[in-house]
Amino acid sequence: MDKYSSILSARFEKIYDWMIQEGIALVVLEDTEARRDQNIRWLTGHPGDALLMLSAERKAALVAWDVNLAKLYAAQSPAAIVSYNDFERKPVKAIFAIAQKLGIPSGSKIEIPSVTPYPVFLDYVGELTNFDILCRDSGAASEMRKLRAVKDDSEIAITRKAALITNKLIDSLEKNVRSGKIKTEADAALFIELEARKAGCEGTSFGTLAAGPQRSYAIHAFPNWTNAPFGGQGLSILDFGVKLGGYCTDVTLTFARDLNPKQEKLVSMVEKAAKLAVQMAHNETRARDIAAAVDAFFAKSKKKMPHSLGHGLGLQEHEYPILRNSDENEWALAPGMIFTIEPGLYDPLLGGCRLENDILITEKSHEVLTTARIIRL
Amino acid sequence: MDKYSSILSARFEKIYDWMIQEGIALVVLEDTEARRDQNIRWLTGHPGDALLMLSAERKAALVAWDVNLAKLYAAQSPAAIVSYNDFERKPVKAIFAIAQKLGIPSGSKIEIPSVTPYPVFLDYVGELTNFDILCRDSGAASEMRKLRAVKDDSEIAITRKAALITNKLIDSLEKNVRSGKIKTEADAALFIELEARKAGCEGTSFGTLAAGPQRSYAIHAFPNWTNAPFGGQGLSILDFGVKLGGYCTDVTLTFARDLNPKQEKLVSMVEKAAKLAVQMAHNETRARDIAAAVDAFFAKSKKKMPHSLGHGLGLQEHEYPILRNSDENEWALAPGMIFTIEPGLYDPLLGGCRLENDILITEKSHEVLTTARIIRL
Repeated sequence: MDKYSSILSARFEKIYDWMIQEGIALVVLEDTEARRDQNIRWLTGHPGDALLMLSAERKAALVAWDVNLAKLYAAQSPAAIVSYNDFERKPVKAIFAIAQKLGIPSGSKIEIPSVTPYPVFLDYVGELTNFDILCRDSGAASEMRKLRAVKDDSEIAITRKAALITNKLIDSLEKNVRSGKIKTEADAALFIELEARKAGCEGTSFGTLAAGPQRSYAIHAFPNWTNAPFGGQGLSILDFGVKLGGYCTDVTLTFARDLNPKQEKLVSMVEKAAKLAVQMAHNETRARDIAAAVDAFFAKSKKKMPHSLGHGLGLQEHEYPILRNSDENEWALAPGMIFTIEPGLYDPLLGGCRLENDILITEKSHEVLTTARIIRL
Repeated sequence: MDKYSSILSARFEKIYDWMIQEGIALVVLEDTEARRDQNIRWLTGHPGDALLMLSAERKAALVAWDVNLAKLYAAQSPAAIVSYNDFERKPVKAIFAIAQKLGIPSGSKIEIPSVTPYPVFLDYVGELTNFDILCRDSGAASEMRKLRAVKDDSEIAITRKAALITNKLIDSLEKNVRSGKIKTEADAALFIELEARKAGCEGTSFGTLAAGPQRSYAIHAFPNWTNAPFGGQGLSILDFGVKLGGYCTDVTLTFARDLNPKQEKLVSMVEKAAKLAVQMAHNETRARDIAAAVDAFFAKSKKKMPHSLGHGLGLQEHEYPILRNSDENEWALAPGMIFTIEPGLYDPLLGGCRLENDILITEKSHEVLTTARIIRL
């Protein structure tokens, strides 16, 4: 068994153990256009459009729309590959057949995804009458997302590689904006697209947000980039990430040119907030305390950040832990967690400024994996 | 009232009428990262991250995360703009406050999105105890999606413009692949990205799928494009669309070079299937009959298409009607419907071939809006 196979098998074993403890006979995961779930990729390597079913008897079936693709990507997973087209791409048909094949006893608990819409849940209950259908927030998918919040060595290694590619891109972007080679939002966005793929990435981890001075006041510029000027007088925001072997980075640069004192103040506050937050990132720190510290820092100057301070990164661009200032946020940092810290302030007249880097929590402290910065032109 | 305002108001009025008929006091729509819903854009012009609530008293509130963006895009809608951050971006809090503000009587029916996950539905029911919470497939969102299946004149006009941009792109792509200016999947994908935005589009309507001869056998190539060669010996697939003012096109070209007889046969069957299907597209034709005719045509040569024949196009890249060969598919074509016809065949050894164009149903017949074709190099 090679290394990747044993990593995947170990993940399955954890879920099987959890299932037995919970008394669940079959877990169903779904990754389709309507409801994406990166847990299937995490378990099998298969990148999309499939169901995955795991039985308490430690057997699994990957029901893939594109069987050729599954054979390529999920070959090292312990799950048997089955064609979704054999069941007319209908989840209930597939579940019924696989439950039978895996010998799930009548009356057993089958857990379906927690994101299953209420009307679909009623269909499942109505059609799979021989089973006890569970659909709950704190179920299998949530358990997997929690496990995924702490990255293993192979995940940290690939994220480090993705961060190196990101950092090279940051340097090239700075150089090209300074030299005038990148003059528009489109120049910046397309440069990132091409260089990421040249470096072996699957692509960007989300649609690059490139917003020149006229548009940077928006939290998420719409459209995400245009042919408008970038890097001119005022504040330009560039928020992007790359996806390597499934794993995401996510950084934001702000380019600042010829700022007035109010803009200068905005930028300096964001820089200070980022520094403050990163310094607090240690094993066992409560995530909400960091977010609260940044909110308090901004509040002293009567500023308010309209979004959370950060979020975990992995197979999805938004994962656990959540860095949000909310009483319900129970997340504490732990070694192996990788997340963003991204303070930002936005003003319709001054423009926007955000500074976002990716942080890895280590046993002793933390590492800032990326080199995003405010670039003064 | 200008033209766009009256179009939006007319859409609200249709929904208000439907609500009164159904006895629903408040309809809640949600467009957030976890659950996208283009109905909010259709009603207000606002492109994303918001809740929209409509009351049977013919009042509406757009609860937007980015209020600046909402003021820019939803200014002509009859909905009042409110900040989502005022409710800590929590749907239940927002619904509770807006229901109070709009004077929804205790005991009334409130309809939440049909895609609401079962556990979230339970939360709503638990917290909004004064109301009767409805969550059903055939509710407000479904009614809107059905209305959206038939485009009005303004929607047809903008889709025609998007199709013209697409057709120019097709001609340039053919020219540049022939001249050797486009040599890789990346060349093709980035050319489309840039030209679409230069022409005033928001972007592409989905991630371009560019698959050279080594990768074209996949239904949806993964990754969607790489730095691999494109347009060499064999079959290369290019599946893309543009998004103009929110409205999508979706076409697929196949580039064919130096084919062997088996590849030639595959291509010629796909071309014939496309012709057969387009000819059948008329007012009142059942969508499933067209899909069944194509499946039967392929079956004569023992071939099987692993996906549906087509789908509606509009604010989403996949809308009603559905062109799928299934007994449950009740869709009949009607004037104003815009959809794709996209037969395809895929073989791990020969490669893949798909031909996809966008069709508008007219009173008398149909128009093929796009000029995608098999390009023999």
